[in-house]
Amino acid sequence: MNNFYYQIPTEVYFGKGQIGQLERELPKYGKKVLLVYGGGSIKRMGLYQTIYAIFERIGIEVIELPGVEPNPRIETVRAGVELCKNNHIEVILAVGGGSTIDCAKVISAGAKYAGDSWDIVTGSVPVTDTLPIITVLTLAATGSEMDRFAVISNMKTNDKLGVFSPLFYPKVSILDPEYTFTVPKNQTAAGTADIMSHIFEHYFNNVKGAYVQNRIAEGLLKTCIHYGPIASHKPDNYEARANLMWVSSLAIDGITWRGNDVIPSVHPMEHELSAYYDITHGVGLAILTPHWMKHVLNDKTVDRFVEYGVNVWGIDPSQDKFQIANQAIEMTANFYKVLEIPVTLREVGIDDTHLEIMAEKASRGLEDAFYPLTGKDVLDIFKASL
Amino acid sequence: MNNFYYQIPTEVYFGKGQIGQLERELPKYGKKVLLVYGGGSIKRMGLYQTIYAIFERIGIEVIELPGVEPNPRIETVRAGVELCKNNHIEVILAVGGGSTIDCAKVISAGAKYAGDSWDIVTGSVPVTDTLPIITVLTLAATGSEMDRFAVISNMKTNDKLGVFSPLFYPKVSILDPEYTFTVPKNQTAAGTADIMSHIFEHYFNNVKGAYVQNRIAEGLLKTCIHYGPIASHKPDNYEARANLMWVSSLAIDGITWRGNDVIPSVHPMEHELSAYYDITHGVGLAILTPHWMKHVLNDKTVDRFVEYGVNVWGIDPSQDKFQIANQAIEMTANFYKVLEIPVTLREVGIDDTHLEIMAEKASRGLEDAFYPLTGKDVLDIFKASL
Repeated sequence: MNNFYYQIPTEVYFGKGQIGQLERELPKYGKKVLLVYGGGSIKRMGLYQTIYAIFERIGIEVIELPGVEPNPRIETVRAGVELCKNNHIEVILAVGGGSTIDCAKVISAGAKYAGDSWDIVTGSVPVTDTLPIITVLTLAATGSEMDRFAVISNMKTNDKLGVFSPLFYPKVSILDPEYTFTVPKNQTAAGTADIMSHIFEHYFNNVKGAYVQNRIAEGLLKTCIHYGPIASHKPDNYEARANLMWVSSLAIDGITWRGNDVIPSVHPMEHELSAYYDITHGVGLAILTPHWMKHVLNDKTVDRFVEYGVNVWGIDPSQDKFQIANQAIEMTANFYKVLEIPVTLREVGIDDTHLEIMAEKASRGLEDAFYPLTGKDVLDIFKASL
Repeated sequence: MNNFYYQIPTEVYFGKGQIGQLERELPKYGKKVLLVYGGGSIKRMGLYQTIYAIFERIGIEVIELPGVEPNPRIETVRAGVELCKNNHIEVILAVGGGSTIDCAKVISAGAKYAGDSWDIVTGSVPVTDTLPIITVLTLAATGSEMDRFAVISNMKTNDKLGVFSPLFYPKVSILDPEYTFTVPKNQTAAGTADIMSHIFEHYFNNVKGAYVQNRIAEGLLKTCIHYGPIASHKPDNYEARANLMWVSSLAIDGITWRGNDVIPSVHPMEHELSAYYDITHGVGLAILTPHWMKHVLNDKTVDRFVEYGVNVWGIDPSQDKFQIANQAIEMTANFYKVLEIPVTLREVGIDDTHLEIMAEKASRGLEDAFYPLTGKDVLDIFKASL
């Protein structure tokens, strides 16, 4: 097990009706609020109206930034930063999924920085001060509600970059699974694939003896496998939505990463797809993952795949190692099919036009991954996924 | 899944050499320190000397409270409170296992309270202010290093009571598994039994749909079962000590409890044994647990025992339910035997003298447990454990 530091400062209110906590929590951080959200779903489900009723009761001054994109753009961040600066915003309330929250995180830093917010995303300036953020989650996927990461896209330069800072932890996150009842089937599926990918990214590692982390990771994966299809077919199944929501928060930035290596492989590959083609992140991950698994399976890595197959998928451990490993990969691919996620890149509009440049960009920094990946490796995985 | 609030504010530094963080962290909270510890083990392993070297480098004024008992007494708490008040202590540094940390927690509240500290333990006055606590852990067992609980004994009244407050979370905990290399076999075994009991106390519950919590709990149990015997036989096995240490912190106050019911059954029973006979907590738990399991196994509870048997012990799921459940209980009892923990109450000097009064006291509040327990039930479990 590696040495690690662990603290997740975010306060989580989980469950039905927890939105009521906003009335007590919001005024602790300020009275001038930037409300950040995506499309109209929060209005259709009445959440927007509930929040405005709270604003009125406690006398909040609100400025809105609606229309955050599924892959949030730097232009939207810049617009939010302007609103914060011009209106002396004290606290940001992000209501939505990971995109909305990620956007709010970079706005929170941009509001305290004199230059262009893209500097923050590229890491060319450090995050030294932020506005406090409160989140109300409406999609179980990225885990942004309880982590320190944000991913922002610049479609002009075809960059989709991640940035992290301990200042990016939301102060408070309200997680009411009922707000995900209206998430459509394809987004539920993509969200589940995203959660699973977060877990895979550290479950498949070369650290010796991070046993408890790996057993917990298997528990989280089993939860996704159990409830993904249920939530997909019965969108208002509270139990399924609650489990997926909490596992999304636990998957990304805590109990399974700390003490393990954290060098994601599939995420950087997918970020290139999204940066060039603006596809749904979770869909890209689900398409790539089985091909990545096949590519990296060898004598050195097979034992971890055996653990995965036996402990997560319940495969008979008495079989040959590679038989177990290949069966586990097949079951993973099949699970994405059950969730009705596209299986090939072509299905989401990606052909071989940009494969080389995307592969080259994705492979930067992957020389220390679970299975070190060169540009050639990534290109092979992309081609196999076409 | 129940609604819940989740936040663990403690900052954890985990791994080899993390004691160096004390130099940076301690001065944040004060320069006048009460150093609380138990016996001489921290001197024998050189930890005491390392800490004093840090004190000297950063100019700390130290008052000592040595000699905290394995079941920490209210008299020791009172002595610590006096030291704090007389010396204007600003921060408490607890170096040891759960007993030392629990003692420090109640001292931290007593130092800010004008009356007698036993009032804090009984809950007759609320905890409204505390001194900050930093811990250096030397025993993996109670999880006190990352939770808000404390248990204090009053041997005059034969009371061993738990008290909790969000103010009891340590600010910083330093978890270096190497400090547990010198923990003797019997204490390693008792600590493992304590950790497992914390997990059992919420794993066996009637909450519907706390699936992810239960899968995580199974991962933690598997870790104890895997590493308990290894640490017992190879005390300087870092991997085993690291996994047991981290699982002890995760087992008690976080990811497996929140969203589940928390009505411990075996802990209250054991607290009576300790209160009357001052036995080792983990030993008492290990003796009682299999008998409690047998007593509560019935048509209503069998399914959870089946989950336990199949997911934790790998028992063939195709068998009859009760066969699986009984096999799981037998494997649990056998595991404690492998750890060489006493099997009967008589072995630890307990006869039938106080069984009735202990049973009556232990059963208070257990009417809402996983399996509701009356005084008669507890008495039966005690008698079966003799």
